[in-house]
Formats: sequence, structure tokens, C-alpha cells
Amino acid sequence: MRYELFYWPSIQGRGEFVRLALEEGGADYRDVCRSSRRLPENPQAFAPPFLKAGKLIIPQTANILLYLGPRLGLAPKSEGERLRLHGLQLTIADWLAEVHDTHHPIASSLYYEDQKREAQRRARIFLKERLPKFMRYFERAVDEKFCYVHLSLFQMIEGLRYAFPQRMAKLEKKHGRLVRLRDRVAARPRLAAYLASLRRIPFNQQGIFRHYPELDERR
Amino acid sequence: MRYELFYWPSIQGRGEFVRLALEEGGADYRDVCRSSRRLPENPQAFAPPFLKAGKLIIPQTANILLYLGPRLGLAPKSEGERLRLHGLQLTIADWLAEVHDTHHPIASSLYYEDQKREAQRRARIFLKERLPKFMRYFERAVDEKFCYVHLSLFQMIEGLRYAFPQRMAKLEKKHGRLVRLRDRVAARPRLAAYLASLRRIPFNQQGIFRHYPELDERR
Repeated sequence: MRYELFYWPSIQGRGEFVRLALEEGGADYRDVCRSSRRLPENPQAFAPPFLKAGKLIIPQTANILLYLGPRLGLAPKSEGERLRLHGLQLTIADWLAEVHDTHHPIASSLYYEDQKREAQRRARIFLKERLPKFMRYFERAVDEKFCYVHLSLFQMIEGLRYAFPQRMAKLEKKHGRLVRLRDRVAARPRLAAYLASLRRIPFNQQGIFRHYPELDERR
Repeated sequence: MRYELFYWPSIQGRGEFVRLALEEGGADYRDVCRSSRRLPENPQAFAPPFLKAGKLIIPQTANILLYLGPRLGLAPKSEGERLRLHGLQLTIADWLAEVHDTHHPIASSLYYEDQKREAQRRARIFLKERLPKFMRYFERAVDEKFCYVHLSLFQMIEGLRYAFPQRMAKLEKKHGRLVRLRDRVAARPRLAAYLASLRRIPFNQQGIFRHYPELDERR
């Protein structure tokens, strides 16, 4: 099966969670918009990313990973285990949406500069209350057996380090298990090759993870 | 199978999307916290609702509906169709999170009164840009064949009518198909019986849908 991924060509964003699975799973895939530079709309998807797999159009990041997981050897086949991993992935989706809203608490359609004051209020509480809660949860809920959820947790930690380096430096001291999981993922040969390639788009200020020093914890 | 639903006992919230499916599907279930009045934590769930089904603990609303759908006759069994419906349900989850953030754009842990100004900014843009976009999408994406997604769309329309009566009165004129779908759902015998019962918690100002006249469109 040749998969086609439809996502913005210039940011990691939500599409990156799918790219990591396709790369680590050794899938035959085309990142459509990175060659054509335009993102076609599809009435079945409210927003990108979506995946074309034969006749199927699959929208929503976590839904795509639910489908790809067992096919790419990144999830067990039993229903109970798939539902458990999917529950974790949906909680990562919630976490990611909260990260996005630290810099866009009022509207995605407004510039950051036009909601900067609100962003500072939201980010302060996110870093103090929500981020530690998510990290505590995943530290306990994730087990050692490698699966696509580990790839997504790798991406969360990478993104959070980019966006909030001061806060993460402190928090990581309490979450050695998550940090070691991140390190093991980064050392996997296929993933390491992908991360070193031009296919990995660098973090930037148009993505979901953005580095605005004024939103990070003070030194 | 006897299901056990764990959710807050005094609001509709996210749990209501599961209750509607359990009721319409004629499931044998217990709404645990409405009898015990306390919500036990479970390390597998970041937040309620979660469902106990035999040995499985299933967190995340859309995940619960993915599991229940084919078992309660509310979704086809083919994988392609299940993924399509799940994609729609996940988009409803995104939509619901945006509704929540109209009154809590800074933090769930703060009172509405302490983020009222930001709420007015966020709600204005939500009603103008996002709400019509979601309604247009679902008007086109949903087909006639009854499934659990129809129950969730019923709940969205009910909640939006409660929260934003002025805005919805205008928007519904353009979305006859969604309104008719809502009416057909409300007329289903099991659902009508549930809605008329004491098991249906009324909308209130602690839930996700809240009516603050200052956030609605002006007359």
C-alpha cells in the first residue's frame, strides 16, 4: 500500500505525528504537499492532516495513527490494547491543543501580536498547572513496550523543549522516565535517519510549538 | 455486558455524548457517580469520562463511542465506515473544546468572571468564523443513515441553542439539514423517553455549554 499524507508543507504541526509513524514504520508514502506545494481541500476532512490509503480518506491525526499502528508494526492487534493506546493518543491531542492555545488563546485567525497579553496569562497557568499534570500522567500511563504513542511523546518533548526551554529544563529533572523514553526513540535507526534528513522540517515560528521567550518561565 | 460510566454527576458535559449512545442503544449501564456522588480517579484516564466494560477501562469520549458504536447498533462494523464516523466524532470533540473555551479562554481553573474580557473577544470570533465553518462542514459531511454521530450532533445543536440563542436562531436558517437531523433524533422513542426523564440533567452554568448573554450575538 502506498500512503499519501496531506498536510502543510512548511511546518511540523499535527502532520509530524503521522510522519514519525510513517518513517519509523518504513512505510511507502508520499508527503503530497511537499512536492506540489499546495494543499487540496477534501470535503471529508475539516482540517489537515488527512491520509489517503487506497480508497479510504482518513482525517484527524489520532484516527490516522489508530489505522496505521497495527499495519506498520507500531501497535498490537488486540482491540483492548488498541483502545488503550488510542486513549493515550487522544490525550496527547488535547495536550497539543493546549500548547497551541498558549500563543493563540483568542483565535487562530489573529496574529500572536494581537493576543500577546492574553497569551502571557494563558501560558503562565499552562506552565504552572497543566504541563506538570500532563507529564505526571504520561510518566505513569505509558509502558515500556515500543508503540506509536512513544513517537508522539518524543515529539511532544522535542516541541516543548523548543517552545519552553527554561520550564522544561526544570520539569525534566522530575521526569527521568519520559526523558529516557525520548532518548530511546531518538536512537532508533530509522528515526535517527529521518531526523537527520531534509525531510524533517525544523521547528519554526509558524508551527504549533513556538518559542516566544516572554511566554516561558523566567530564569 | 453491563457498562459502567464514570463522569461528573451534576453536568451534561462530555459524559452526555456517551449517555445518549447508551440510552439510544438500550444498553445495560450504571452512571456510577450519580448514585455514589463521588468520582474515583483512575490512573488510565487523564480526565473523565471513562467507561468500564468488563476488564477494559476506556478513556476519552470519542474512544468510548468508537468502542460502543458497533456493539449498540449505532455504527456499521466495516473498518472504513468506523474510521469515517470516528473522524467526524473527533471533529465534534474539537468543536466542543472551542465552545468550552469561549467562556474559559485563559484557564479552566479560573472563574469565568476572571476571564470575562478575554471570553468576549474569543466568543465574538468563534461565533463569526468558527461556528459557521463547523456547521457548514457537518451539513455536508454527515449522511442520512442513523449512527452515533447523529446523537452527538443533536447534543451540539441543543447545547449551542442554550448557550447562544441569538446566534443560532440566525444560523439555523441556513442549515435546515442539520436542524431536521436534530428533530429526527429527538423523535426517536428511546431518546425521547430519556430526554423526558430525570436521568437527563438540565443544561446549567457549570457545564460546557453555558448561557452568558454578553457572549451571544446582539439582537
